[in-house]
Amino acid sequence: MSSTPADLAVIGGGQLARMMQQAAIGLGVRIRLLAEGPDVSAAQVIPDHRVGDYTNLDDLRAVVTDVPVVTFDHEHVPPEHLRKLQAEGHACRPGPDALLFAQDKAAMRERLTELGIPCPRHAGVASIADLEAFGYPAVLKTTRGGYDGKGVWVVHSAADAEEALSSGRDLLVEELVEFRRELSSLVARRPSGDVVAWPVVESRQAGGVCKEVVAPAPDLDGRIADEAESIGRTIATELDVTGVLAVELFETSDGRLLVNELAMRPHNTGHWTIDGAATSQFENHLRAVLDVPLGPTEASSPWSVMVNILGGSVDDLEGQLPQVLDTGPDVRVHLYGKTVKAGRKVGHVTAVGDDLDATLARARRAADLFEKGTTDG
Amino acid sequence: MSSTPADLAVIGGGQLARMMQQAAIGLGVRIRLLAEGPDVSAAQVIPDHRVGDYTNLDDLRAVVTDVPVVTFDHEHVPPEHLRKLQAEGHACRPGPDALLFAQDKAAMRERLTELGIPCPRHAGVASIADLEAFGYPAVLKTTRGGYDGKGVWVVHSAADAEEALSSGRDLLVEELVEFRRELSSLVARRPSGDVVAWPVVESRQAGGVCKEVVAPAPDLDGRIADEAESIGRTIATELDVTGVLAVELFETSDGRLLVNELAMRPHNTGHWTIDGAATSQFENHLRAVLDVPLGPTEASSPWSVMVNILGGSVDDLEGQLPQVLDTGPDVRVHLYGKTVKAGRKVGHVTAVGDDLDATLARARRAADLFEKGTTDG
Repeated sequence: MSSTPADLAVIGGGQLARMMQQAAIGLGVRIRLLAEGPDVSAAQVIPDHRVGDYTNLDDLRAVVTDVPVVTFDHEHVPPEHLRKLQAEGHACRPGPDALLFAQDKAAMRERLTELGIPCPRHAGVASIADLEAFGYPAVLKTTRGGYDGKGVWVVHSAADAEEALSSGRDLLVEELVEFRRELSSLVARRPSGDVVAWPVVESRQAGGVCKEVVAPAPDLDGRIADEAESIGRTIATELDVTGVLAVELFETSDGRLLVNELAMRPHNTGHWTIDGAATSQFENHLRAVLDVPLGPTEASSPWSVMVNILGGSVDDLEGQLPQVLDTGPDVRVHLYGKTVKAGRKVGHVTAVGDDLDATLARARRAADLFEKGTTDG
Repeated sequence: MSSTPADLAVIGGGQLARMMQQAAIGLGVRIRLLAEGPDVSAAQVIPDHRVGDYTNLDDLRAVVTDVPVVTFDHEHVPPEHLRKLQAEGHACRPGPDALLFAQDKAAMRERLTELGIPCPRHAGVASIADLEAFGYPAVLKTTRGGYDGKGVWVVHSAADAEEALSSGRDLLVEELVEFRRELSSLVARRPSGDVVAWPVVESRQAGGVCKEVVAPAPDLDGRIADEAESIGRTIATELDVTGVLAVELFETSDGRLLVNELAMRPHNTGHWTIDGAATSQFENHLRAVLDVPLGPTEASSPWSVMVNILGGSVDDLEGQLPQVLDTGPDVRVHLYGKTVKAGRKVGHVTAVGDDLDATLARARRAADLFEKGTTDG
C-alpha cells in the first residue's frame, strides 16, 4: 500500500470496484482497496490495495487507516465490524443499519412491509409444516448470502423443499410471483439526503443470472415508471441508504410492482449508465458516498442495451476485440480482467442507438463473440 | 511491477497516461508504465509501474520485457533507443521514424513542405546574419525540446535574438503568422492504415499554454474544416503515424491554414472527446496502437468546451468538488492527481451543451473555482 492518504476505502475487489476506479480517476479521488487476492479485477487497476479478508476486523482496520470514508463492492461485510469502524471515526456508506436490509431478506421484507412498499407474500419458515401452511408453489430463499440464483429454490411440494430445509440455514418463503418481466429502479443518495434516479430499466435473466438490460424498459406504463422510481426513492430515504441503491422489481401480469431484491452498491442493472446516461452509476456512487453534488441521470441515447459476457468457450477475451469492435460503431466493451470460467460474469457490452431491435441485436452479437468466438448458433 | 503479462507499455507517467488507463480499464488492456517517480499522475492509477528514466535504454528494456506494444505519454524518448526496442521485437507506436517529426521541428518543416502541406515560411538559422536575411518580425524556435511556449522567442530585432542564438541549440526561424485563431485537427491511425478524424476544434492559448478548447471550432468555414481534416489524415498516413496525431494549425487572417506543431499522442486539444465525442482520443489511441478497429468520432453534443485548470491559489483541488459540481449538471471534472504549482496543468473541466456562450461560461466558472476558489474577479 501507498503511504499517500486515500480519500475512500473500497472493500472488495470485483468488477464494481474496478469500474468505480474509472470514475475515481476523473474525480482525482484516491481509492484504497481491500482485495480478495493480489490480481483480482479491481486490484489490477488500483495500486493502493492490500490483500485481506473482509470478514476479519484487523484486515478491515489495516485498510481503512487514515481513510475517512468506506464503501463496498459487495454487501457481505459483517455489520458488527462496520459498527466498530464507525465508532473509530470512519464513515461507512452505506452504514450497517442500512446494509442489514440488503444482507437479510427477512429483515428487508419486514421493513418494506412496514413502509407500505409492495412485496411478494412471504413468511418465515422452519419446517415442512410452515411450508404446507404457506402453500405451493412457493419460493424458498436463504435469508442471507444468496445471489445470482444461489440460495433460491422453487418448490411445488414438500419433496422439493428437502435440500433447503435440511441446509440448517434461516429460510424465507415467498409466493411464486407470476410476473411479466423484471424491472430495476436505480437511485443514488447522499448523506445530506439528495436523491437522483436513473430511468427504470428492464432486466432479463437466464438461469437466475442477469443476462440483458434494456434502458429504458420498453413500453413501460408511465404510472408504473413513476411508481418504480418512487419506490427507489422511498427505500433509499427511509432506510438511510448512502450511495447507489438498486431495487429489483417484478412487474406482475396484472400490472402491479413487487419488490424482489435490494442491492446497496452499483448494480449489474446499472452498467448501461457508463455509456448511456449523463452520469454513470459508478461516478454517482462515488459522489454520493463522498457527499458532493450528484450528476444528472438522464439517458443520452434513445436506447441502451447491456449484455453480460458470461464465461464460455473463449479464454482470450482481448483476442476477440478485433472481431467485436468490427460489429459496429456503437458497441462499447467492458472487460473485467477475470479468468474465464463457465457462466462467470467476465465483462459486459453496451450498445446504444435509436432502434431497439437493432441495438439489441448488436449488443447480443458482440457478447456472443466474446462467449463463443462466433455469432453462429 | 507485476509478474502478469501486460498488453501495452506506456512510457511516461503524466496525465495522458493516466487518462489512457481509464480507457484501458474498459477494454481489459493491461498497461505497464515507466514512471518518472513513484507517485506521478499515472503511477497513482496503474499498479504495474516501474520508476525509471526514459532516456536510459536499460530502464526502457526493463519495462517493455514481454510486452508486445509500446506507446508514449510524450515524444521525448530517444529514437535510437526505440530502434533498439524495435529490433528486439517490440512494436513502437508511433515508431521512431514518425516520432522524429514530432521531436525535430526542422525535420517536420522539411517533410511537410515536401508533401505540399502549407507551413509558415521558415529557414534554419545559426547566426544574426541568417536572421537578418530572413527578416523581422520572426519567431525563433529550438528545433527540439520546446513545449508550452518554452523554446520560442518572438523577435523584432537582433537584440531580441541574443538569448536564443547564444543558447547553443539548433534553431529554426519562422514568419510571425498573422492568425485569426488556432485550430487543431485530431486523427487516429492504425498500423493497418485506417484513419478516423474528430471534428476540428478551436484552441485558445494564454501565455503560450492551451487554456480553452471549443469543439467544434465556431463558425468554421466548411472548406477550411475539410482542409484541416485532410491535412491531419495526410500527415498521419504519409508519416506513418500510429495512434493519435494532433496537428495544431493557424487559421490566418486571410483564410489559409498553416501547420504550427505536431503531437503524436493524445493531445490537450482532444481532452473534450472524453465527454463530448462518441469515442475519446484515449480509447482510440489504445485501439490504434493495439491495431483493433477504431471507434466513431462524432460529437455527442452540439458544443463541448474544455478549460484547463492551471495551478492557482487553491491547493486542495478535491476540496473544491462540492462547489464545482454545484455549478451545473453538465460540467465534467478531470483532476490529474498532481501537486498544485503556479500555472501547471493540474486538471481540466469539460462542459457540454446546446448554447455555446452558456457552455463556455459554465466551463470557465468551474475552472475558476479550481484555480481561485471563487468565480469573482
